[in-house]
Amino acid sequence: MSRPPFPVTSRNTDAFGLSPIAHLIGWFVGALGALMIIPAVVDRIVNNPDWQVFTVSAAGTLFIGAATVMSTERPHGRLSIHQGFLLTSGVWVASAGVGAVPLWFSQFGLDFTDAVFESMSGITTTGSTTIVGLDTAPPGILLWRGLLQWIGGIGFIVFGLAMLPFLKIGGMQLFRLESSEKSEKTMPQATRFAAAFVVIYVGLTVTCGIALKIAGMTTLEAVVHAMTTVSTGGFSTSDGSVRHFASPVIDWIIVVFMISGSLPFLFYVRLLQRHRKHPYSFQQVMTFFRLVLSATLLLTLWLTLERDTAVFEAFRLAAFNVVSVVTTTGFATADYNLWGHLPLVVFMLLTFVGGCSGSTAGGIKMFRFDMQVLALQLYIRRLIHPHGAFVVTYDGRRASDDVIAGVLMFVGIYLITTAAVSVVLAILGLDFMTSISGAATAIGNVGPGLGPLIGPAGNFSEVSDPAKWVLTAAMLLGRLELFTVFALFAPRFWRP
Amino acid sequence: MSRPPFPVTSRNTDAFGLSPIAHLIGWFVGALGALMIIPAVVDRIVNNPDWQVFTVSAAGTLFIGAATVMSTERPHGRLSIHQGFLLTSGVWVASAGVGAVPLWFSQFGLDFTDAVFESMSGITTTGSTTIVGLDTAPPGILLWRGLLQWIGGIGFIVFGLAMLPFLKIGGMQLFRLESSEKSEKTMPQATRFAAAFVVIYVGLTVTCGIALKIAGMTTLEAVVHAMTTVSTGGFSTSDGSVRHFASPVIDWIIVVFMISGSLPFLFYVRLLQRHRKHPYSFQQVMTFFRLVLSATLLLTLWLTLERDTAVFEAFRLAAFNVVSVVTTTGFATADYNLWGHLPLVVFMLLTFVGGCSGSTAGGIKMFRFDMQVLALQLYIRRLIHPHGAFVVTYDGRRASDDVIAGVLMFVGIYLITTAAVSVVLAILGLDFMTSISGAATAIGNVGPGLGPLIGPAGNFSEVSDPAKWVLTAAMLLGRLELFTVFALFAPRFWRP
Repeated sequence: MSRPPFPVTSRNTDAFGLSPIAHLIGWFVGALGALMIIPAVVDRIVNNPDWQVFTVSAAGTLFIGAATVMSTERPHGRLSIHQGFLLTSGVWVASAGVGAVPLWFSQFGLDFTDAVFESMSGITTTGSTTIVGLDTAPPGILLWRGLLQWIGGIGFIVFGLAMLPFLKIGGMQLFRLESSEKSEKTMPQATRFAAAFVVIYVGLTVTCGIALKIAGMTTLEAVVHAMTTVSTGGFSTSDGSVRHFASPVIDWIIVVFMISGSLPFLFYVRLLQRHRKHPYSFQQVMTFFRLVLSATLLLTLWLTLERDTAVFEAFRLAAFNVVSVVTTTGFATADYNLWGHLPLVVFMLLTFVGGCSGSTAGGIKMFRFDMQVLALQLYIRRLIHPHGAFVVTYDGRRASDDVIAGVLMFVGIYLITTAAVSVVLAILGLDFMTSISGAATAIGNVGPGLGPLIGPAGNFSEVSDPAKWVLTAAMLLGRLELFTVFALFAPRFWRP
Repeated sequence: MSRPPFPVTSRNTDAFGLSPIAHLIGWFVGALGALMIIPAVVDRIVNNPDWQVFTVSAAGTLFIGAATVMSTERPHGRLSIHQGFLLTSGVWVASAGVGAVPLWFSQFGLDFTDAVFESMSGITTTGSTTIVGLDTAPPGILLWRGLLQWIGGIGFIVFGLAMLPFLKIGGMQLFRLESSEKSEKTMPQATRFAAAFVVIYVGLTVTCGIALKIAGMTTLEAVVHAMTTVSTGGFSTSDGSVRHFASPVIDWIIVVFMISGSLPFLFYVRLLQRHRKHPYSFQQVMTFFRLVLSATLLLTLWLTLERDTAVFEAFRLAAFNVVSVVTTTGFATADYNLWGHLPLVVFMLLTFVGGCSGSTAGGIKMFRFDMQVLALQLYIRRLIHPHGAFVVTYDGRRASDDVIAGVLMFVGIYLITTAAVSVVLAILGLDFMTSISGAATAIGNVGPGLGPLIGPAGNFSEVSDPAKWVLTAAMLLGRLELFTVFALFAPRFWRP
């Protein structure tokens, strides 16, 4: 469980070698190129001229991927931690770059900045868009945006499995502690888990797609929404997002599958195994449901009392949009900017929250809130009994001071980073609410912000180019849990 | 240094006895009653009928204080930690209650809610006010508000000295570690430090008052502003705050003394002692100046380029208002709400920051940001060398994982508390910016919020009564560093 699917160790002699990293990135690039054949075929079928763009992009990308793979060295033995970090950042940056190519050259006419923004928003499963006119967009583009999010979602889960134990800020480190005694066995175990996650991911997506199709979506809409719902991405096939369909049934299907994508995937494995001894992640699942339910009920009450909405409609609107923001999906069925001041405050705060760790969701995540509460309890115990020795457990495992301090530090740095990005966005000319919610939505990989410009009824097309680049970087930072990227900038990181 | 001026221990047989607590609170109440004689005399001199209110309040308060002292038991031996917590919360609540009496009954006509809000805002050195018409207010009231802040300021410094080592979330715990070996000696040492702090506090106030008088204030104005500047409180004698005086010289004098009140008082002791071996708190002082300078320069640039302000005026306006918010004083020389969106974002964030620990300032405080950075450095080192053993030092002393985790947990709970108070304020009808900035300004003991209602050009008079009570509680929570109050609500706290 502690070992990543590709072998990682810190005892590598050539710990800084870039060639094996380029080799592996080459494989990823090639795979994305191969994926482009899908929208190419679809656009060819509907006779949209974009099929040529996708075909050429696919060919070019496959060529570059293959050339990279062939001109670089295969990794021998295990990768070092350094190489793991470089690989992770490299894969996401390369994927965003490659994913942007067909968007840039398509007849849809995105400029370079918008194409990269859109592609990064896809691969990080953020879901912020700069495109206006999705309803008349060629199917290839819609499919490609969906595919980027879908790949990004499962990519993030595997990243969590592989890298988070080393970052010690996720939730996976609890696993590492558990399995450190039997580290010889863990490699095949990690691969087995990764495989199980992929199967579950595909299963959820297919089920979601079938349900959406039955509920009345076209096949294209059902496929795209299934991919962007389970990945908690939030790209839609309509400028109006899910409100376009005006169907309570579709709303509830999407609510269920947004939640499914933001629960820890290990939770499903345990469920399937009927594993009673290690109910890992049950605690964060409970925290998640408690929070979603409280926020939903509060807003239902508000909509009923203050906005005279019928109670069932109020509940559906509140549930959908709360779940969408907390799971960091970012679909919308209403412009909650107009609901009044309490919903504004609530949605602003929910933008920081995020789903469970080990899922496709972004944000601070439930596990870290649980750790915060655990730390508070431990603190009060120690305050009252200064000489007592206390062992704190989480889901039946010991949570050491080390782990707790790491998680709390992460939350602090997360918020400081959001504050810094807000200031930069404000310097670049965005207003108060757009700056703060924009920074939060990008780093949390949520999607919409607040306010008329980037809120649930707006999109990012009117944002200036420099601000788009800042947001693009913020999406990457947030997706890679900050430290994967920050570590690359530490001079210490590069010292042998 | 580690021991409070009144002896505290956890090995008390009667650890939960309330009588000694009431006894000590009785002394504090009596002292406040005695202080009321000052505004009584001043109002008598200027023939304002309020002198009677102050005289009666003084007599009543002195009587209640004396009766409490006489009907309760003197503390024997040391207080328990429980009693220390109860005493602290008790003193602040009792002081706010007693301080409200003359405000309530004065001819100025505050209602009960406003009087308690104003008194709590005073004793916590917050500086939010509900009074409109300060410019024509009787001198007794103005003096009383100033005295409340002045007493609150030095009270907080002594609280820091006495209680924070036990809370382990301030900066004082570093001291506790240092002096734990020689705990026998620390009692007189703590008393000596407390005395030194009072002398420095009085010295700064007198110097500030003389400077303000020379710069053109009336004696009353100079006295009140000196008391509310050094205590980083922010009550003024004019509805227009310091902008009323329209004097650059006064602005700069106040800037200097706001800073003086928000530096660690130990810093002055070390300076006076020419103590080179233990340059305690130098690091947070540097962090403080770096942050104030960066924010000032950023806003100066903004005002010059975007608002066509002359560069010197821009620098003065930026410096004054940044220092006022960071030191949690809360004076204003401009309505920075109207400066544009970047200043709004910057002031929103600065409302959280606060001065140095061991000073009169509120907020999160520099020390805790330093710890955050320290934790990040430690984390990255451990990430890169998983098997290394690292010792982190702060100002030449070892900062253990325990201390770091405590501080980080505090910051997390601080922000979660602010978020919760924001939601409650929004439920009570305040708008987005007022809810969030109101929660932040109350918990940070800053004073003004953002927006037209409670911003630097507004005040809290138009806020609804329930919201005023929430803010009153938030000011208390913030001033007592949250946990002093939270601990009282932990069931575990009351278990023997």
